[in-house]
Amino acid sequence: MDFVGKAKWDAWNNLSDMTQDEAQKAYIDLVHSLAGEDSPSQASVSSTESAGKYETVAVTLNDGIFKITLNRPAKKNAINYKMYEEVGLALSEAANDKNCTLAVLTGAGDYYCSGNDLSNFMNIPSDGIGAMAKQGGDILEKFVNAFIDFPKPLIGLINGPAVGVSVTVLGLFDVVYASDKATFHTPFSQLGQSPEGCSSYVFPKLMGTAKASEMLLFNKKITAQEACDRNLVSEVFPNDVFQKETEARVQQYAKLPKISLQKCKLVSRELEKDKLYQVNKHECVILMERWQSDECMNAIMGFFSSKGSKL
Amino acid sequence: MDFVGKAKWDAWNNLSDMTQDEAQKAYIDLVHSLAGEDSPSQASVSSTESAGKYETVAVTLNDGIFKITLNRPAKKNAINYKMYEEVGLALSEAANDKNCTLAVLTGAGDYYCSGNDLSNFMNIPSDGIGAMAKQGGDILEKFVNAFIDFPKPLIGLINGPAVGVSVTVLGLFDVVYASDKATFHTPFSQLGQSPEGCSSYVFPKLMGTAKASEMLLFNKKITAQEACDRNLVSEVFPNDVFQKETEARVQQYAKLPKISLQKCKLVSRELEKDKLYQVNKHECVILMERWQSDECMNAIMGFFSSKGSKL
Amino acid sequence: MDFVGKAKWDAWNNLSDMTQDEAQKAYIDLVHSLAGEDSPSQASVSSTESAGKYETVAVTLNDGIFKITLNRPAKKNAINYKMYEEVGLALSEAANDKNCTLAVLTGAGDYYCSGNDLSNFMNIPSDGIGAMAKQGGDILEKFVNAFIDFPKPLIGLINGPAVGVSVTVLGLFDVVYASDKATFHTPFSQLGQSPEGCSSYVFPKLMGTAKASEMLLFNKKITAQEACDRNLVSEVFPNDVFQKETEARVQQYAKLPKISLQKCKLVSRELEKDKLYQVNKHECVILMERWQSDECMNAIMGFFSSKGSKL
Repeated sequence: MDFVGKAKWDAWNNLSDMTQDEAQKAYIDLVHSLAGEDSPSQASVSSTESAGKYETVAVTLNDGIFKITLNRPAKKNAINYKMYEEVGLALSEAANDKNCTLAVLTGAGDYYCSGNDLSNFMNIPSDGIGAMAKQGGDILEKFVNAFIDFPKPLIGLINGPAVGVSVTVLGLFDVVYASDKATFHTPFSQLGQSPEGCSSYVFPKLMGTAKASEMLLFNKKITAQEACDRNLVSEVFPNDVFQKETEARVQQYAKLPKISLQKCKLVSRELEKDKLYQVNKHECVILMERWQSDECMNAIMGFFSSKGSKL
Repeated sequence: MDFVGKAKWDAWNNLSDMTQDEAQKAYIDLVHSLAGEDSPSQASVSSTESAGKYETVAVTLNDGIFKITLNRPAKKNAINYKMYEEVGLALSEAANDKNCTLAVLTGAGDYYCSGNDLSNFMNIPSDGIGAMAKQGGDILEKFVNAFIDFPKPLIGLINGPAVGVSVTVLGLFDVVYASDKATFHTPFSQLGQSPEGCSSYVFPKLMGTAKASEMLLFNKKITAQEACDRNLVSEVFPNDVFQKETEARVQQYAKLPKISLQKCKLVSRELEKDKLYQVNKHECVILMERWQSDECMNAIMGFFSSKGSKL
Repeated sequence: MDFVGKAKWDAWNNLSDMTQDEAQKAYIDLVHSLAGEDSPSQASVSSTESAGKYETVAVTLNDGIFKITLNRPAKKNAINYKMYEEVGLALSEAANDKNCTLAVLTGAGDYYCSGNDLSNFMNIPSDGIGAMAKQGGDILEKFVNAFIDFPKPLIGLINGPAVGVSVTVLGLFDVVYASDKATFHTPFSQLGQSPEGCSSYVFPKLMGTAKASEMLLFNKKITAQEACDRNLVSEVFPNDVFQKETEARVQQYAKLPKISLQKCKLVSRELEKDKLYQVNKHECVILMERWQSDECMNAIMGFFSSKGSKL
C-alpha cells in the first residue's frame, strides 16, 4: 500500500466531487475577477474552410492568411485537452496548405486566452495522479512543439487578457500585436507550478532575468505596454482600432514573396530549434513532477475552495 | 540543355540591357524616394594617411582613431564589390596598425549607406547565374567576417539613412551612435532575399523575435530612436550636434589604455566568434540559393522596371 | 634574475608605502567624489541570527527572508577579501537553511557597494605579484560562483551607488530593485582591467553589445532608470519610499510555495550554469593577466597618486 499516494488520491477525489462544469465556472469566475470587468455573453466565431472539423477553434483561409481563433469565449478560451490538440492540428494544416502564406492566432470574445483549463486536472484516471501528470505533460510538450516547428510566419493578435501557457508560447511567435486591453499573466509559483512554453529560456533572452523573474517566479501581471517594453509584444494598438490596424498589416504581409518569408523565418529558427525542443521537454518533466507535489495540490485545492480568490 | 537555367539566363540578360549606370541610377532614385528628400550634389571626403590606396572609402588616422568613411556619396554610399573589398582591407589595416586604438565607420554626405549596390547583380558572368551567386556569397561572407574578426573597439557613426547589410552588420559593432536623421531598413523579403550580416542570430538577441521579425521578415523601416529602443543603437543625437558630440566621445575613448580596451572587447567576442562564423556562412548559403530563385529575380526585375517604386 | 618582475615589484612596494588605511581613504574619497555628495558618518547594521559570526556583513532571517547587508558603511561597503569570503558563506548558509525561502542583498548606509577594495592590491605577498594576482583571481572566481550556484530566489535592493563587481554580479540575481539614488558604474578599462562577474556574457544579453560596451569598455556610469531600461534592474523606486515598497514586495514573495519558487528559478538557471562557470573562469584568467600588466599598474598608481582624480 502506497499510503501517501492513497492520501493524495483521496484528496483529488474529494476535489473531483466538484463537477467539471463547476470547476470550469470557478476558474472562469476567478479569471474574470482578475480582469475586474463584467463577462457579457460571448458569441462564437464561425469557421469557413474547415467547418465541422474543429470544436474548440475556428479556422478560416483568405488571401493567404490562415486564421485560427480560440473559440470557447464563454470559457474565456481556456485550453482544455481538445483545444491543445486542435491548435496543433490547425497549425499543421496551415503549414501544409500551399495556399497559406502566414498564420494568425487570436481569441473570440473579450479574452485572448485564460490559459490551461484547470478542469483538465479534474479527470483523474484510474491508474492515478502519476498517469494524469504523464498525460498532461505529453499533451503540453506536443502543443509547444507545434509552435517550435511551424515553418511559416506566425502572428499573434492579442485581443484581450492572456494567462499562463497562452502567454509563454508567444515567445515562439514571429510578430505579436496587442490591444491595449490585453494583459499578460503567468501565475506559476502561486499555483505550485513552474514555467512552460520554453519561457524559462526565451523570457530571460527577451527581457533579462530581472524582469523575467518578476513574471515567472513572482506572478507579476503586466500591461500590453509593459509587454512591449519587455520585447514580448511588437506593438500595442488602442482597442478600438486594434482589429482594423492589425488586419491592414497582416494583409500587406501576406502579399510578400512566400518562400522568402519562410526562409527569412527559418534562418533564425533553425539556430534555436534543438535548444527549444530540449527546453520544452525539460520544462514538461519538471512540471509533471510539480503536478504530483503536495504544494501544487494544496495550491489548486485552495484555488477551487476559496470564493473570490484572486491570483 | 538546362531549359530553366536558359530561361533565367535570358531574363537576366534582358535585364542587363540596362547599363550599370542606369541600374545604379534607378536604385539610387528608389533609395532616394525612400527617404522622401532631395539629393543634393555630395562632396567626397579625402583620405590623409592612405591617399590613393582606396577608391570607395576614405581613411584617416589621428590620435589613435582610425576613421573609415564610406565614400561614394553620389551613389548614397551603395556598396559595390570594390567597396566590400576595401572596407575589409581598411579594417585589416586598422587591426594591424599599432598606432590605432579604435576604429570608426561613417558615411560621406547625407546617407550612411544605401546597402548592397544592386548593380552588383548586373554583371552576369559567362558561366551563369550560379557562378554570380557564388561570387556574391563569397564576397559577402568575407566582408562580414572582417567585422567578426576586428579585434579593437569599433564605433559606428550613423549620419543618415542605413539600408540592408549596412544595418545588419551594426550588430557586430561595439558602440553605435546615430543622428536623429538616421533610419534603419532591411527590405529582404520584399526583394526575395533573406537576412545576412549575422542578423538572423544577433537581431533576435538584441530586441526579441517579435521586433526583429518586423524588420527581417516584414521590411519595417525604423527611426533612430526606435533603433535605440531595440538596442541596435547606443544613443541618438540631434543631427546638428551629432558630429561634435560623437567626436568628443570618440576622442575620450581613444585615450583609454589600449590593451585593456582590446581585452574588454575580446572577452565578450570570443564567446560568440565560432557561432558568428557559422551563422554568417549559413546565411550566405541561403542567400546564394535565394539569388538564383524565381522569386528573387522577379522581385529585382520588378524593382528595376517600375518607375517610382517604393520599398 | 627576472628584471621586469623586479621592477614591477619595486613599483608596487613603493605604492605600498601608502598604508592600507591611506589607500582605503583615497579610494573612498574617489568613490565619494564620483557621487558628488557629502559622506556623513554611517551606522553599521546589526546581525540577529548569526551575531558575531560575520565581520563585514550583517545577516538576519525573518519570515523566510534571509537578508545579507554589506556592512562597511564607513568604507562605502568596499569589498575586501574578508567580505568576498563572507558573502559566499552567507549565501551558502541561506541556501542550506530550511527556514529560508529567499535571500536579499543590500548595503548599509548611503552606498550599495563601491566595488573591489583597491587596498586588496596593497598587500603584495613575498612571492610576488603573480602570486597576488593568482590569489585575487581565486577569491573572485569563488565569489562569483556563489551567485551562480545560489538555488533560491535572490533579490538585490540597490539602495545607492554601485561600482564594479557589485554591478556585474547583478546579472546573476533574480530580481533587482533600485532606489532612484542608485547609479551603476563599471570603470574597468580606465583602471587597466577587464570585466568580471560574468558580465562579458550577461550584459550583452541584457542590453545588446552597443549598450553593454559603453559600460564595459568605455566606463559609462548609468542612472537607475537607465539600468532599468537596460534590463539590469527590474524596477526603480523614489528613494523615500524605496525601503517600504520593496519590503512589501519581498514579504509577499516569501509567502509563495517554497519548492515551486526554487524550481521556477532552477529551470532557467540550469540552462546557463555550465556556460556561466566557464565565463567566470575565463574572465578571471584574463583579469589575472591584466593585474600583472604595466597598463593596470600605471592606472592604479595614477589613481592613488592623483588628488581629486575622477573616474
